Amino acid sequence: MIPNKARKLRDELKAGRTVVAAGAHDGLSARLVEAAGFDAVWASSFEISTSHAVPDASIVTMSEYLEAARAMNYSVRIPIIADCDNGFGNSTNVSYMVRRYELEGIAAVCIEDKRFPKLNSFIGEGQALESVEEFCEKIKAGKGSQQTEEFLLIARTEALISGRGVDEALRRAEAYADAGADAVLVHSKARTADEVLAMLGKWDGRAPIVVVPTTYYESTVEELAAAGVQMVIYANHAIRAAVRAMSTTLAEVRERGTTASVESRIAPLGELFELQGMGDVGRISI
Amino acid sequence: MIPNKARKLRDELKAGRTVVAAGAHDGLSARLVEAAGFDAVWASSFEISTSHAVPDASIVTMSEYLEAARAMNYSVRIPIIADCDNGFGNSTNVSYMVRRYELEGIAAVCIEDKRFPKLNSFIGEGQALESVEEFCEKIKAGKGSQQTEEFLLIARTEALISGRGVDEALRRAEAYADAGADAVLVHSKARTADEVLAMLGKWDGRAPIVVVPTTYYESTVEELAAAGVQMVIYANHAIRAAVRAMSTTLAEVRERGTTASVESRIAPLGELFELQGMGDVGRISI
Amino acid sequence: MIPNKARKLRDELKAGRTVVAAGAHDGLSARLVEAAGFDAVWASSFEISTSHAVPDASIVTMSEYLEAARAMNYSVRIPIIADCDNGFGNSTNVSYMVRRYELEGIAAVCIEDKRFPKLNSFIGEGQALESVEEFCEKIKAGKGSQQTEEFLLIARTEALISGRGVDEALRRAEAYADAGADAVLVHSKARTADEVLAMLGKWDGRAPIVVVPTTYYESTVEELAAAGVQMVIYANHAIRAAVRAMSTTLAEVRERGTTASVESRIAPLGELFELQGMGDVGRISI
Amino acid sequence: MIPNKARKLRDELKAGRTVVAAGAHDGLSARLVEAAGFDAVWASSFEISTSHAVPDASIVTMSEYLEAARAMNYSVRIPIIADCDNGFGNSTNVSYMVRRYELEGIAAVCIEDKRFPKLNSFIGEGQALESVEEFCEKIKAGKGSQQTEEFLLIARTEALISGRGVDEALRRAEAYADAGADAVLVHSKARTADEVLAMLGKWDGRAPIVVVPTTYYESTVEELAAAGVQMVIYANHAIRAAVRAMSTTLAEVRERGTTASVESRIAPLGELFELQGMGDVGRISI
Repeated sequence: MIPNKARKLRDELKAGRTVVAAGAHDGLSARLVEAAGFDAVWASSFEISTSHAVPDASIVTMSEYLEAARAMNYSVRIPIIADCDNGFGNSTNVSYMVRRYELEGIAAVCIEDKRFPKLNSFIGEGQALESVEEFCEKIKAGKGSQQTEEFLLIARTEALISGRGVDEALRRAEAYADAGADAVLVHSKARTADEVLAMLGKWDGRAPIVVVPTTYYESTVEELAAAGVQMVIYANHAIRAAVRAMSTTLAEVRERGTTASVESRIAPLGELFELQGMGDVGRISI
Repeated sequence: MIPNKARKLRDELKAGRTVVAAGAHDGLSARLVEAAGFDAVWASSFEISTSHAVPDASIVTMSEYLEAARAMNYSVRIPIIADCDNGFGNSTNVSYMVRRYELEGIAAVCIEDKRFPKLNSFIGEGQALESVEEFCEKIKAGKGSQQTEEFLLIARTEALISGRGVDEALRRAEAYADAGADAVLVHSKARTADEVLAMLGKWDGRAPIVVVPTTYYESTVEELAAAGVQMVIYANHAIRAAVRAMSTTLAEVRERGTTASVESRIAPLGELFELQGMGDVGRISI
Repeated sequence: MIPNKARKLRDELKAGRTVVAAGAHDGLSARLVEAAGFDAVWASSFEISTSHAVPDASIVTMSEYLEAARAMNYSVRIPIIADCDNGFGNSTNVSYMVRRYELEGIAAVCIEDKRFPKLNSFIGEGQALESVEEFCEKIKAGKGSQQTEEFLLIARTEALISGRGVDEALRRAEAYADAGADAVLVHSKARTADEVLAMLGKWDGRAPIVVVPTTYYESTVEELAAAGVQMVIYANHAIRAAVRAMSTTLAEVRERGTTASVESRIAPLGELFELQGMGDVGRISI
Repeated sequence: MIPNKARKLRDELKAGRTVVAAGAHDGLSARLVEAAGFDAVWASSFEISTSHAVPDASIVTMSEYLEAARAMNYSVRIPIIADCDNGFGNSTNVSYMVRRYELEGIAAVCIEDKRFPKLNSFIGEGQALESVEEFCEKIKAGKGSQQTEEFLLIARTEALISGRGVDEALRRAEAYADAGADAVLVHSKARTADEVLAMLGKWDGRAPIVVVPTTYYESTVEELAAAGVQMVIYANHAIRAAVRAMSTTLAEVRERGTTASVESRIAPLGELFELQGMGDVGRISI
C-alpha cells in the first residue's frame, strides 16, 4: 500500500503533537532528514533555488520545484510539505498547483501572501503583500481543488517579516484559517521569538500554528511547543551545512593536490552506496 | 559571447597542462568547484544518482543526467565534463547523446566500456566489459556526430578496475585513441597508483591520459602530472563532504531541538544568497 | 477522491469485458481518445518518440516517457496503459520503473521481451528476444515492486512478430502469465489475424490476452472479442491522422500565403479552448 | 558546425525579406513546419499549452515551454522563435529567460505587454496591459542579458487586441523599438487587416513589424508584405488541423471497431518512421 502521508501528518496535528520538520532540496537531503529522525521534510524553495544556483525569486519554475519534491517523496516514508512560494501566480495557478502536487503524493503545500514574482523573505524590507481578500481567494481555490480529504494547505503570512506587526499577523492568520487553511505559518525574522509568542498569546487556536525559527534559533522546540506551536521547521540548515563542508573540502583538495587530508572528514563511499539503496542491486566491494 | 569551453579545455590539453577537475551534482556544487579554483567540473553520474537517492546503476536517465549537467554549465564559466556511463545504450544512443550534450554547451562527455545497464565501478568484482570492437564503434559514432570540432569525447576503460591487468588496459586505451577518443580515462580502484603508473610507463602518448584517484589518494596531482597524467578528477568528494555535514548537523538539530549549537559551523544565509547571485536581484537584509 | 483507475481496468478485465484502447502521445491526444469513447489510453512509445521526432529505438528516456504518461493521466478520467518498451534495462530498472509509474497514478505498464536498446517492432526482421527466464525475472521484479494490489503489469511477447511462430508465442505467454503478468500482449505484424487467432485457439485463459491490430485491421473488435481477446489497442492512429492533417494543411498555407482555404477543415480556436479547459479560467471572446 | 540560426533570421530581416513562420508544439510539428517550406518555427504558447491540455493562462511553466522549444530546435534546421508570454514575471525573470533560451540555441524570443499571469489574447475583452515604462524595462533587461549579438528579442504589443487603438499601438511599438526590441509584433483580433494596415501606414520603420493574421486570414502574405510587414506568423493552424483529424479518426475507429475505413486518410507507418529519422537506425520492414 502506498502510505497515506497526508493522513499521517493531519492526524499528528489533530492529536495536538508538535511536528518537527527540516528543509531539503533533493532526494538525498530528504533521506538524511528522515534518517535524523524528523517527522516531515520541508521542500524548501530557498534550498531548491540555491541548489540550482539561481536567486530565490520566482525563477525556478513550478515544474522544477515539483520535480524536486517528487524526488524527495520517492526517497522517504515521512510526509513532504512543499514550500510553494505565493502559488506561482493567481488562484488559477493555485488550483492547478494543488492538483499537481496532490497527484504526486505530496502531503501538504504552503503558500504565502507575498506578490508574484516573490523575493526571499530575508531580502529587503517591507515587501508588498497581497490583500487579505486576494489571498483568501487563493486559499479557497486551492482547497476547492484537492481531490482527497487528507491533503493539507498551509497559509503563510509575511505580516511580521514585512514589518506590519502582530495585530496584522493575527488578522491575516484568522482570515486564512477561516478561508480553509489547514494550518497557518507565521514567519518572522526577529532575533527572538517575542513577536511570534505575542501573536500566539492572542491566538484562539482555530488552526495549528507553524513557525520557522531561522533567526530566533535560541528558542527550542520544547519552548515553542509549550507556547502552542504545532509545527517547527528548520528550513535551510541542511544545505547551509553542505555548502560550508563542500567549500572547505574542495578548497583544501585544490590547494594540496590530494584528498588524503580530507578523507577522514567526509563520508566514505560505502555510506553513499547505502544511502542510494545500492544494496538492493549489487554487492559493494569497497 | 558565449564562452567556448570545449575550445578552452582542448587547448589546455594540447598545451601539455594537467587539468584538475572535481565532481559535482547540481548547479550549486558546480559553482563551489569553480570557486575553489578547479579547472573543470566533472558532472559525476555517481554524485548525480546519489543526489536522486537512487543506485548508480543506469536508473537515472540520460535526460536527467543532461539536465543536471546543463544546470552546472549555466552556473559556471569553466568547462563541464559529463560522465555518461556507457553511453546509455548502443552506438545509436551515443550519437544522439553527443548531439544533445553538445547543443547544451557541455565541453566533453566521457563514456566507459562497461555493459548496459551499468553498475558503479566500486560494486562487485570483474564486471563484464564490452568488446574492444563494440566500444570503438561507439567512439566512432560519438565522434562522427559532433557538430563542432572542439567538443571532446573521453573514452574510459575499466580494464584495470575489472581485474584484466595493465596490458589489457594498454591495448584498450590504444584502440580507443585510434578510434578517435580525444583522451582516455584509465580507472583503477587500487590503494596505490602503481598499476596506473605502470600503464603510463608503457603509454606512447597518442592521447592524453585521465585518472580518478579516489582510492589511491596518497598520490598528488604533482606526482601524477610528473608521470604524464593530463587530467586528474576528484570525482565525488564534494558530495561526500556534504553528506557527512548534513548528517551530523541534522542529527544535532533534531536531538537538541534548536540550531543554536550548529550556527557557527554552517554557512550563513548571506553566503547562500551570494552563491545564488541574489545581489543582482535585491538588497539582502540579513 | 482520486479515481482508482487501475482498479477500474482490473475490474473490467475480470468481468470478461473487452477493453478498447487508443494510442496517444500527449495530454491533448489523450483527451481526444477519451472524448471519442475509448476505455483506456495507450501511452504509445512509438507515438511519443514520433512526437519528439526521434527514432523509436530506446532514445526517448524513461523520464520523458513517464512525463508524457503523467500529462495524459492528468488530462483524462480513463486509465492510462503505459507502453514501456523492454523495461528500460534489466530487472532493477523494471522495479524502479514500476514504482515510478505507479506513484504517478498510471494504471498499467506493458513491457516486451525484446532486448535493450529496442527497435520498433516494424523495423527489420527476426529481432533478438530475451530468454524466457530473463524476461520472467523482469516480470517478477515488476510485480514484486508495486505498492498497490490494483496496478497491472502487461507482458508483451514479440514471438510472432520476430518470426518464431505460434508455439513459441504460446510457450512465452504461458510462462509470462505464470510469472505474474496480469495480461499478455501478443504482437503480430501479419496482414490477417490468423496467427493471433491460432494462438488464441490454444490458449487456456490463464491471463487476459491483448492485441494490437495495426496490420490486420480488417478484423473488428467484435470478431477479436469473440475469439477471446480482452483488450484491443489501436496504437498509433491518432498521431498518423495528425501527421497527415498537419502536413497537408501546412503545405497549403505555405503555398497560398493565407489560411482562408483551410479554415473550414481545421478545428476553430473555440474548440481548442474547450479542450484546454479554458472555460474554468476566463470567458472566450472569439 | 552548429548552424547560427539567429544570424540567419537577423540577416533575412535586415535584407528586407518577409519571413513566414508557422506554429508548432513539439519536435514532430516543427519538423512538419520545416518540411512545408516555412522560414521559421513559432514555438506557440497556445499550441504548447493545448498539447498539455491545460489553459493558455501561465500554467505551463517556462521550463516546460523551453523544453518544447528545445525539442523543436533539435528537430529542424530553420530558426525557432519562442513565444514567451509576458516573460514569465518581471525583468529579472526576463533576464534569466533570455540566457536560458539563448543557450539552447533558440534564435529569438517574443514577449508581450500583458500582465502576469497572462490569459490568451482571444479570451475576454480589454485585458490589462503593463505600462510602457515597465515593459521597456523588460526589453532592456532581456537585451542586456543576451550573450551573442545575433539573438533577437521581439516585443509584442496587445494595444490593438485590448481595444486601445492604433495610436496607442504606434506609441508602444515606437517605445519598444527604442528600448532595443529587434522587431515589434502588433497583434490584432479584427476580422480584417484594417487596423494593422492603419498602424503600418504611420510606422517609420525603426524596427521590423511582425503580424499574426489568425482572424484576418483573407489577407495574404503578399498583401501584408506589400504593406511593409516583415514577418507573418500562422500561429496555431498545425494543431488545429491535428485536433480535427484526430477527433474524427478516433470517433470513426471507436464507432466501427476497426481502422479499415480510415487507413487511406492517415499517414502510413513508414512516413512516421521517416519523420523520426529511423532510416539512420534500422531497415524499415513494413
